Amino acid sequence: MKKVAIEKKVLSENDKLAVKIREQLTGRGVLSLNFVSSPGSGKTSLLEKTLAAIGDQLNIALIAGDVQTENDANRLIEAGGKSVLPIVTGGSCHLDAKMISKVLPGINIDELDLLIIENVGNLVCPASYDLGEDMKIALVSTTEGHDKPLKYPGMFRRSSVMVINKIDLLGTSDFDVEEVKKNARQINANLKFFETSCRTGEGLQNWFHWLIDTVKTKKDRL
Amino acid sequence: MKKVAIEKKVLSENDKLAVKIREQLTGRGVLSLNFVSSPGSGKTSLLEKTLAAIGDQLNIALIAGDVQTENDANRLIEAGGKSVLPIVTGGSCHLDAKMISKVLPGINIDELDLLIIENVGNLVCPASYDLGEDMKIALVSTTEGHDKPLKYPGMFRRSSVMVINKIDLLGTSDFDVEEVKKNARQINANLKFFETSCRTGEGLQNWFHWLIDTVKTKKDRL
Repeated sequence: MKKVAIEKKVLSENDKLAVKIREQLTGRGVLSLNFVSSPGSGKTSLLEKTLAAIGDQLNIALIAGDVQTENDANRLIEAGGKSVLPIVTGGSCHLDAKMISKVLPGINIDELDLLIIENVGNLVCPASYDLGEDMKIALVSTTEGHDKPLKYPGMFRRSSVMVINKIDLLGTSDFDVEEVKKNARQINANLKFFETSCRTGEGLQNWFHWLIDTVKTKKDRL
Repeated sequence: MKKVAIEKKVLSENDKLAVKIREQLTGRGVLSLNFVSSPGSGKTSLLEKTLAAIGDQLNIALIAGDVQTENDANRLIEAGGKSVLPIVTGGSCHLDAKMISKVLPGINIDELDLLIIENVGNLVCPASYDLGEDMKIALVSTTEGHDKPLKYPGMFRRSSVMVINKIDLLGTSDFDVEEVKKNARQINANLKFFETSCRTGEGLQNWFHWLIDTVKTKKDRL
């Protein structure tokens, strides 16, 4: 019981800090997105493609979280990311608001359109930690099972968008796109879906357009 | 600091319980394996194939852990599993020794050759919890990045075997089998490797033979 109480306290401190981060970003009209998924669903690949396609139109900063290594951050820099900050959690299975607020001063948010946070690959723990983002974007790849939303409901309940990635590999398993959507809607009726392949480029234009529109909507609210 | 201290206490209680479970199983010559991986690497598929192939030769019990749903347990029963117990963690990102000791009385371990525990799909948290198993078996699929051992070192350091699954999909990404082995050996020089495809059956015979041999070795030590 004591552990639960302390965890609640940690979470509540996290939530207070997340509110501050959100106020800071929203005050400048910056859209912030928290990318979550299993390890290997293609978060970094989708972000590489996004940087290459719309990195010139939008001022984008990225925070890349990993348990160990700065591999993802390095990939994002190579893909054209001008402002990329790694967070190595050193064992922690998720990012938290404190980690974000520590690196945030390294980003010029006055000039920023979009802050993308790539969380640690994990479908459980990152669901519990608000990082001050506007939305969580959950990726599922077609090489995982289409029952993932039912098996990890917390993550999909707290996400606004679900990207079904690696659709070029449809047919190599019994993964069913309609089934994964049906399962996801059972958990969260408001989810918006994208279907993408970072290998063939299929579906990426829809994703880019939505991202640009959503950034614009946030700026217009200032 | 208080949180860390309490987590250490929880872990130490877990370890004591794990020792008891290990003694109980080892006393009967039962081999116990804890399967860990990202969600969607193919743990359940590999276990389905294993049950179908050698379920008649060995007396196998399975414990299938998930955050929500008994989907995996149901798949294992359909695949011929005679003794399959689900654990729904209801939010917890890993199984622990207490959960195992609660369900263990439901298994006739006097008659048992092999206990397989399928952990929650998560490459971080399950690494910290000893369940009383003889070995952790870590799966990585070829649709994930070959840098996974470097990014999630805790899991691969504590595993004895690494199964590289979905090798039928090699070539659909830049995943490199030799590279994943090299990365894994950097973390754990003693890892034993298998390369499998549950779809084409490639490599499964090696896995089955090793499993039967390892069960036999454990029994012979009684």
